[in-house]
Amino acid sequence: MRRTRFNDWHCSIARTIDLMGDAWTPLVLREAFYGKQRFEEFLERLGISRNLLTIRLKNLVKEELLIKVKYQERPPRYEYKLTDKGRDFFNVLAAMMQWGDKWLDAGRGAPLELVDKNTGQVVKPQVVDAATGQPFDVRNLTARPGPGFPKKKPPK
Amino acid sequence: MRRTRFNDWHCSIARTIDLMGDAWTPLVLREAFYGKQRFEEFLERLGISRNLLTIRLKNLVKEELLIKVKYQERPPRYEYKLTDKGRDFFNVLAAMMQWGDKWLDAGRGAPLELVDKNTGQVVKPQVVDAATGQPFDVRNLTARPGPGFPKKKPPK
Repeated sequence: MRRTRFNDWHCSIARTIDLMGDAWTPLVLREAFYGKQRFEEFLERLGISRNLLTIRLKNLVKEELLIKVKYQERPPRYEYKLTDKGRDFFNVLAAMMQWGDKWLDAGRGAPLELVDKNTGQVVKPQVVDAATGQPFDVRNLTARPGPGFPKKKPPK
Repeated sequence: MRRTRFNDWHCSIARTIDLMGDAWTPLVLREAFYGKQRFEEFLERLGISRNLLTIRLKNLVKEELLIKVKYQERPPRYEYKLTDKGRDFFNVLAAMMQWGDKWLDAGRGAPLELVDKNTGQVVKPQVVDAATGQPFDVRNLTARPGPGFPKKKPPK
């Protein structure tokens, strides 16, 4: 089934959503953030089919969020490691975590906490305006074409 | 086609991903953030089919990110307005925008900018640790069960 593509939209949100594809891609990344690197580990943790996992990993390598590294020669075995681009994507999942903890948990508290390994402190992700360090209200915002907006509309 | 559901996973990331469903849901929300409220507006902006849009809007109302408000009696006409829960979801899209602007734009700069209507300043979303106000590196983090993690595993 061919799904609608959004990767040529002039919007980083649409392009990021396009890259995520379906729910499995961010979940594979979640496991990578939690330290998983091998095909069988992803398989076991996610309960995904081998075929779907193969496709998702291949796409994440193509999009340069993961690199495939051979860790054993005979038989050849591979690990999937996060690139800087992939590691930075954790911010998107962290924003989901913040929102889900607040709105989906019906007062029970967060099912998972992030902890800084060095300090032992709980880390609570928050989305802020970089300039002020303060959260913002979307009602006060408007969007306008930025420097990367095409000067002319493309043919389509 | 029945897709795998993640809404009973003990993880706010998985639950949020489950709620998003496919790419259309966050894109409908994007339009809502940009001020669109009517069925025909979403339709025109997104190029989505009437049927898919109906399903996505219905789900966003069920999940309480949007409320459906009658704005005209004869014939009955409705608008979809963001709830607090829906408005807060903009943080997730803002994190996508931050990531996409950084990694998907090949040096051309952001296709869209967010501007504060009151101050005229460009707002650049950033994901930080709420306690320190600083960005964090996922390599320094580990995850552990939080207060909302079930004491016993559910029967599944």
